[in-house]
Amino acid sequence: MQTPEIDVVGIGNAIVDIIAHADDSFLTAHGMQKGGMTLIDEAKAEALYAAMGPAVQLSGGSAGNTIAGLASLGASTGYIGKVKEDALGQIFRHDISSAGVRFPTEAAREGPATARCLIFVTPDAQRTMNTFLGASALLSPADVDDDLIRSAGITYLEGYLYDPPYAKAAFHRAAEIAHGAGRKVALSLSDRFCVERYRSEFRNLAELHVDYLFANESEIEALFETDLESALPRVVSAVEIAAITRGANGSLIAAKSERLDIAAAPVERVVDTTGAGDLYAAGFLFGLARGRALAECGRLASLTAAEIISHYGGRPETPLNEYVRVRS
Amino acid sequence: MQTPEIDVVGIGNAIVDIIAHADDSFLTAHGMQKGGMTLIDEAKAEALYAAMGPAVQLSGGSAGNTIAGLASLGASTGYIGKVKEDALGQIFRHDISSAGVRFPTEAAREGPATARCLIFVTPDAQRTMNTFLGASALLSPADVDDDLIRSAGITYLEGYLYDPPYAKAAFHRAAEIAHGAGRKVALSLSDRFCVERYRSEFRNLAELHVDYLFANESEIEALFETDLESALPRVVSAVEIAAITRGANGSLIAAKSERLDIAAAPVERVVDTTGAGDLYAAGFLFGLARGRALAECGRLASLTAAEIISHYGGRPETPLNEYVRVRS
Repeated sequence: MQTPEIDVVGIGNAIVDIIAHADDSFLTAHGMQKGGMTLIDEAKAEALYAAMGPAVQLSGGSAGNTIAGLASLGASTGYIGKVKEDALGQIFRHDISSAGVRFPTEAAREGPATARCLIFVTPDAQRTMNTFLGASALLSPADVDDDLIRSAGITYLEGYLYDPPYAKAAFHRAAEIAHGAGRKVALSLSDRFCVERYRSEFRNLAELHVDYLFANESEIEALFETDLESALPRVVSAVEIAAITRGANGSLIAAKSERLDIAAAPVERVVDTTGAGDLYAAGFLFGLARGRALAECGRLASLTAAEIISHYGGRPETPLNEYVRVRS
Repeated sequence: MQTPEIDVVGIGNAIVDIIAHADDSFLTAHGMQKGGMTLIDEAKAEALYAAMGPAVQLSGGSAGNTIAGLASLGASTGYIGKVKEDALGQIFRHDISSAGVRFPTEAAREGPATARCLIFVTPDAQRTMNTFLGASALLSPADVDDDLIRSAGITYLEGYLYDPPYAKAAFHRAAEIAHGAGRKVALSLSDRFCVERYRSEFRNLAELHVDYLFANESEIEALFETDLESALPRVVSAVEIAAITRGANGSLIAAKSERLDIAAAPVERVVDTTGAGDLYAAGFLFGLARGRALAECGRLASLTAAEIISHYGGRPETPLNEYVRVRS
């Protein structure tokens, strides 16, 4: 087996985030489940945007955030995801490319617009997401760049990819190629509701194809339909390493022969939790790619998560290699 | 004279900001003058964007920021400025409308794209701006909504409007209509280089048509080609009230019979000075519109400026009426 040329390649829904403040009453009035992610169609996206306050636009997408975070830490990275050739698609491509990420996926010339996620941040800094998948749903197995996958030490997949039908196939194809080349496969469960939509598939997937699992407590509980402590033995028997985030309570790292509790890194003020899990994964994967001990992977993950929740949006504002250096 | 229906109407270049971090060496390599605003064409805008790091998109424009700030404080407001019917134009319209601002100006269907400003924020939190005026330069006297101007207690004009040729005429027309209706006219000098481009015109304008003048020290010095202290008597003879910002040193308010020094409001961390002057003007104009004493106008202005420099971009992140209430 060759030494990997790049550290991590991510596959995900290529999405531009549109972020605004909202009160809890706004969520209620629009029937939103706080903290969750709801899939919406284009008409609903337009109606919600019309009702939304002044907003900020920036690139997002779960795996996109993770890969941009890895690049900002100094990792070599690639990304596979579908945008359209439109203004939002150009923004997505610019941001990921200028972060130093290889992004070979061609933009769609026809069909639905680039995906967007309308994110409402409530005064408690929680984000509630409404995603119009648009062009990102066109990602297909043909978009999976075999050489890129083979060249990467870790292939990172977001659970949200299970929503668009072709993407799921792309997802499985990538996992097979990666394992065929002796590489590792990482999966983020993304969202409790996403886990509930695909519970049995995710369980099979975790057992058969996943080496590193990222999830929060409630996603693990949803996956195994039991509390975290009872689920842990099953998690550990299914995957090599699981990193389970617990918000302000830090995270739990579970491996075959090790279990670690990691404290959350302190933050002056939590502004917006968008991307917290994505950037936790970025820090953790960076540690793994550099062969660090699990405790150090967890420490890095807590730091990169702390940076992202101290401002709007799920892409780092401060170069993360510098952020981590200053706080180490 | 009727009581004004709305507090302030602003006229300005309708611009979407694209903001990214950059090192000082990036500015040097691209021949940028730190802290200034340079006009660029579309080709240069594309080349700079390609060289720019991952970015954040949000509505901007000097008067646009001021008016959005006023709306966030609870003032009734209007805005006149030109966008194109494209994705950035839709973002601009959404943001200003959803802030509660009347925005009657029709979008251009043809011609150049919506204006954008590429803003590079250096580690010292200073912003350096590169503006492609695009559709905003198409603003003409015909876009000046007479009724809106007459209905507003104060018409607020940004100095940058002197750059596009038709906008200058729109600017003068608005000032005449406002004064004809017994209303007040406010002007922001915008930028030292802008003042140098139109020095004699600005001097005539200030003397003939301006009641409230907003500027920073270096703009006042550029306008009168002398130091601030020597310029002050001329400023005071030209306008009713001048509010002169001095960065971390606060501001100076000069009126015929009063001179006040106002302290800057404390900020945990200065992140990005984009919009500092614009939001200072918002707080000050809000005080004037509510008939407050000058010291109180200055205090409000310092607070709203403090909010805007504590995050990226020139539009408020926190509802300003709440921000001011909490800190009062």
